[in-house]
Amino acid sequence: MSSQPPVIILVRPQLGQNIGKAARAMLNFGLTEMRLVAPRDGWPNPEAGPAASGADVVLEDAKVFDTTAEAIADCNIVYASTVRRRDLVMPVVGPEEMASAIRSTAGRAAILFGPERSGLETEDVGLANGIVTVPINPQFGSLNLAQAVILLAYEWARSADLAQPTAKETEPPAAMAELERLIGQLDVALQEADYFHPPERTQVTRSTLRTILTKAQWSSREIQALRGVVRALSVAKKVKR
Amino acid sequence: MSSQPPVIILVRPQLGQNIGKAARAMLNFGLTEMRLVAPRDGWPNPEAGPAASGADVVLEDAKVFDTTAEAIADCNIVYASTVRRRDLVMPVVGPEEMASAIRSTAGRAAILFGPERSGLETEDVGLANGIVTVPINPQFGSLNLAQAVILLAYEWARSADLAQPTAKETEPPAAMAELERLIGQLDVALQEADYFHPPERTQVTRSTLRTILTKAQWSSREIQALRGVVRALSVAKKVKR
Repeated sequence: MSSQPPVIILVRPQLGQNIGKAARAMLNFGLTEMRLVAPRDGWPNPEAGPAASGADVVLEDAKVFDTTAEAIADCNIVYASTVRRRDLVMPVVGPEEMASAIRSTAGRAAILFGPERSGLETEDVGLANGIVTVPINPQFGSLNLAQAVILLAYEWARSADLAQPTAKETEPPAAMAELERLIGQLDVALQEADYFHPPERTQVTRSTLRTILTKAQWSSREIQALRGVVRALSVAKKVKR
Repeated sequence: MSSQPPVIILVRPQLGQNIGKAARAMLNFGLTEMRLVAPRDGWPNPEAGPAASGADVVLEDAKVFDTTAEAIADCNIVYASTVRRRDLVMPVVGPEEMASAIRSTAGRAAILFGPERSGLETEDVGLANGIVTVPINPQFGSLNLAQAVILLAYEWARSADLAQPTAKETEPPAAMAELERLIGQLDVALQEADYFHPPERTQVTRSTLRTILTKAQWSSREIQALRGVVRALSVAKKVKR
């Protein structure tokens, strides 16, 4: 059970004003930890403060990262806020389901939001455990960044009242950085085994494998076990060769 | 049971821009009926359209009234969106309770919102059946008009069965027999690779791996992909060649 509010990660945000509005939306529901991945106009941004309407503490503590992978490295469960993606097969949940998943997962949660104009890129979404989609009017879907943030922040806060203190004693998912090491190790082993062919399919195959491995939300101990499996198989293969 | 969306009534709104943003927030969750009570800058207001980001239909159909009483005359249940009022003894509900009250009341519902700066006057609130208050951070309550509208509109939409994305687009987990084949294949590969040692730990290790692989609830397609991975890495394949 986690009562730690999720980290809000803005990936390549464009306008400082929108970063400020997002900070305000966060603080309204008690979320204080913001991370910025490669903000377009650098950081700090003088336009963010006035738009935050007093939520300066969120902006002052905001941390900047070069890549999404670095920004989520210490997080245990990650949702990508985006519309349904045809290009990715991964779990899609509503805000309520996301909030209860975060509540029932030990460790640190994060929610990714994409640039205002274009939304999250496929590779950013692929790093997450699932997609969270706000069920908006199919004839008029026009949520801006701060609105998306406030709805998910609200839902997280709302889930506090509903949260049952019946924690399952399962191990928390490993930090994303650990998963990343497993994926990297498997990738090397598969390259050595000539798994990736034809070359033009390599990216799709990699992204499929990433989804498969991310989905499981393995604990640190489980990831260690799997790394042992990959090591055993790849070493044995080299020896036999 | 009413499935008619509530009417959104802006009482003495100040900025055209905020009226536009409120319209956009409404339409995102399928609310289309807006009423304006004595808008400060008259109506229509040229600043509303651009801020509505395409929700023009809401603005075009908006009706203007001189008084709040007239604006709610045809409504059957009315909530006033405001903070808790010491000066009035009336029911105070949260957004969710409001939504379910609206759903279970036949006829037309309305939600009142006050001017941006000052909020609703006592006499306006007194016309309502109850107060609806969004439970925000007591240390930082700073909801703007459009944010208050979107949260209540969202909660209304959420209260419908349609509001949550019910149709999961993820593939169903594979039949257990398929998973069994993956586990069996991996087991053979690991034996070939001398992974299981010391022998007395073999059963525990096997059971750990089974838990790890079962947990993920992979689809049939995902299991096929993983069988390909094991095949690529496995020694047995090379030996058989």
